[in-house]
Amino acid sequence: MAILSGLRITECAAFIAGPFATMSLAALGADVIRIDPLEGGLDYHRWPVTEFGRSLYWAGLNKGKKSVSIDLRLQEGRELAQAIITAPGEDAGVFITNFPATGWLDYEKLKQMRGDLIMANILGNRDGSTALDYTVNCAVGFPAVTGAPGAGAPAAGGPGETAPVNHVLPAWDLLCGMTAATGLLAAERHRRRHGAGQLLKIALSDIALAVVGDLGFIAEVQINGEARARHGNHIFGAFGHDFETADGRRVMVAAVSLGQWKALCTATGIGEAVMIMEQSTGLDLTHEGDRFAAREAILRMLTPWFAGRTVAQAAASLDGAKACWGLYQSFSQLVHEDPRCSPASALFAEVDHPTIGTTLTPRSPIDFAACEPVPPGAGPVLGQHTDEVLLDVLKLTSVQVAALHDKRIVAGMER
Amino acid sequence: MAILSGLRITECAAFIAGPFATMSLAALGADVIRIDPLEGGLDYHRWPVTEFGRSLYWAGLNKGKKSVSIDLRLQEGRELAQAIITAPGEDAGVFITNFPATGWLDYEKLKQMRGDLIMANILGNRDGSTALDYTVNCAVGFPAVTGAPGAGAPAAGGPGETAPVNHVLPAWDLLCGMTAATGLLAAERHRRRHGAGQLLKIALSDIALAVVGDLGFIAEVQINGEARARHGNHIFGAFGHDFETADGRRVMVAAVSLGQWKALCTATGIGEAVMIMEQSTGLDLTHEGDRFAAREAILRMLTPWFAGRTVAQAAASLDGAKACWGLYQSFSQLVHEDPRCSPASALFAEVDHPTIGTTLTPRSPIDFAACEPVPPGAGPVLGQHTDEVLLDVLKLTSVQVAALHDKRIVAGMER
Repeated sequence: MAILSGLRITECAAFIAGPFATMSLAALGADVIRIDPLEGGLDYHRWPVTEFGRSLYWAGLNKGKKSVSIDLRLQEGRELAQAIITAPGEDAGVFITNFPATGWLDYEKLKQMRGDLIMANILGNRDGSTALDYTVNCAVGFPAVTGAPGAGAPAAGGPGETAPVNHVLPAWDLLCGMTAATGLLAAERHRRRHGAGQLLKIALSDIALAVVGDLGFIAEVQINGEARARHGNHIFGAFGHDFETADGRRVMVAAVSLGQWKALCTATGIGEAVMIMEQSTGLDLTHEGDRFAAREAILRMLTPWFAGRTVAQAAASLDGAKACWGLYQSFSQLVHEDPRCSPASALFAEVDHPTIGTTLTPRSPIDFAACEPVPPGAGPVLGQHTDEVLLDVLKLTSVQVAALHDKRIVAGMER
Repeated sequence: MAILSGLRITECAAFIAGPFATMSLAALGADVIRIDPLEGGLDYHRWPVTEFGRSLYWAGLNKGKKSVSIDLRLQEGRELAQAIITAPGEDAGVFITNFPATGWLDYEKLKQMRGDLIMANILGNRDGSTALDYTVNCAVGFPAVTGAPGAGAPAAGGPGETAPVNHVLPAWDLLCGMTAATGLLAAERHRRRHGAGQLLKIALSDIALAVVGDLGFIAEVQINGEARARHGNHIFGAFGHDFETADGRRVMVAAVSLGQWKALCTATGIGEAVMIMEQSTGLDLTHEGDRFAAREAILRMLTPWFAGRTVAQAAASLDGAKACWGLYQSFSQLVHEDPRCSPASALFAEVDHPTIGTTLTPRSPIDFAACEPVPPGAGPVLGQHTDEVLLDVLKLTSVQVAALHDKRIVAGMER
């Protein structure tokens, strides 16, 4: 049995946060039903796509789910979707959407059909206005401190020092989705103990704002009266940087804890140079803040060491001393060269998708020792499970299902 | 009552992932006990710090928790910590650590004290080797595609085109922490239904590897035979970019969905120019992929529009058409100018911390309509709750607690 076996969640969502929340719960064994319009949702063609226009993104973020296609412009289609969302069963009645919770998705209306419904509504901003990862990230300060001082985006025509560098990883979307997953399980726990369902609201911008507070960026402005500067690839408040090796590769080296710092000194033999520097500067590099103050000097000490060694040679010394480091890899290098990203890792299996092909597909990154893992599944084909859900969840007869197809209220698997 | 009222979680952890997991659950009402060595854990002095050396980071990531100080080098101290971790109660017996689960933290040993213990162990890599956010991020491809083509870190001496740009937001740590929170609630649900606790393992690098798969980056390499290029601040596969305004500010504009694209055209009046471009190129910009193909041309159309308007003027048009955009802000601007980051938002309150001062502090970004929110609390002072936990959780007498202090096995609030 998987850890969430039996729990049923319905989803009307698009893009990342909502779909990632339920994908993550499906990977723990939840029975997730994603409802989409007949032509697919807003994210159905989101890039990257195959040469035949199939979205690799959609396949990835919906894997392990059941796909149901309903004409949601029609009243009868909306009622079908509402019936799936509010179907009975103590393990059912959990719903997530990032669409406006109005009209047929209004919580009070849905609650009339199932009094203990748990519904999570992901918003852009708390006031209901739109926001995306990109328009949230720009507001919370990180693009202004990403990249080397003087770097930035020359194409935008601004001064290099202040040009923003956006992140490529949609970090806020992902964190929002996983926060919603946590919220749904918390609400389900509450319902099981006290009987009551409820509406959850989670705004994407609040996710980012809360993190800026949690990590001390707000306090840095309020208490210290200064905001973080742009430090390139240096790790703030400790020592860490990238280095180029003799064979043209790059490694990231981190000495955040004292143990990591001692290991780095041992591996690279800079101990004596560090001691001399400490004597001349009065710094004590066993303190992380002093390592940050001396970061440029440490960089200069270590650069020739890496430049004179291949990655393999550097790795032998670093691993021997248990220093903390990582190799920079492109996406291609990651896929082709890193055993952690291969079927050799229990995280992955090669999974075949009928319209895409075979790809290395992850299961949940959480191992539960006393429960069975859910093998990674392919993303569904749009409408693949329409009939199954109508028959099993709504208990319609096959004659009724056929009539819905005839009236083009629902659709089965796209051909 | 808060949504997780009653649930007790013990933490022996440091840095971000573990502390963020329990901070997030404490913000939902869980009773979280963080156990640290007498001098504080590895992260006790992590930057940013105040002028008096108090860690704003530690305060942020431990808010809402109880802090217990125990000399964990001593056998008697370790037994006390084990007793707290495995204390009875159906809502207790949940434990998280990012330390090696060996010695006194060995799961099998702890299980002998409480058979249904739930324990989450956060690892660097699946094989138990060390990894940090920085050394994971470099390996999974994002630094190679972040920043404008030709940007990168000149200090590292490499060719600009390939120099990596690290992220500043520790996105993998945060996502790992929230994944652990989801995992703990899933395991607690399972225990409540089936009686069994278990060991969870979550590797930081697996979090990143799984996301690279979920978002289609692995499939892009395997199916399309190509890896993502560096696209600066362009949104891949749609249209989005930053623009400078007449008053020297910058905005991020996104047109991912068709609705957002139409709104952007309406707001900026580029509809006719787009039509002419479509006729001459054969592109159809209602398709997101064609918008990406035409991104540089769209950029050129929009740049003068923004350059000729102040942010306020641009905002009026963009908001009027319901276009999706955001303002770039530094951390200072965020704190001083954005009402979303102020006590005007229900997300925040001004909270006083005895050794730091008053800071704008977030509560949980999840609103549960049927449960009371947990007001944002200050981070604890190290050892603030040692006696309370010994008395309430371990049911020691005040004489016994005093003896532990006398033997310097525990410590109270740091002065």
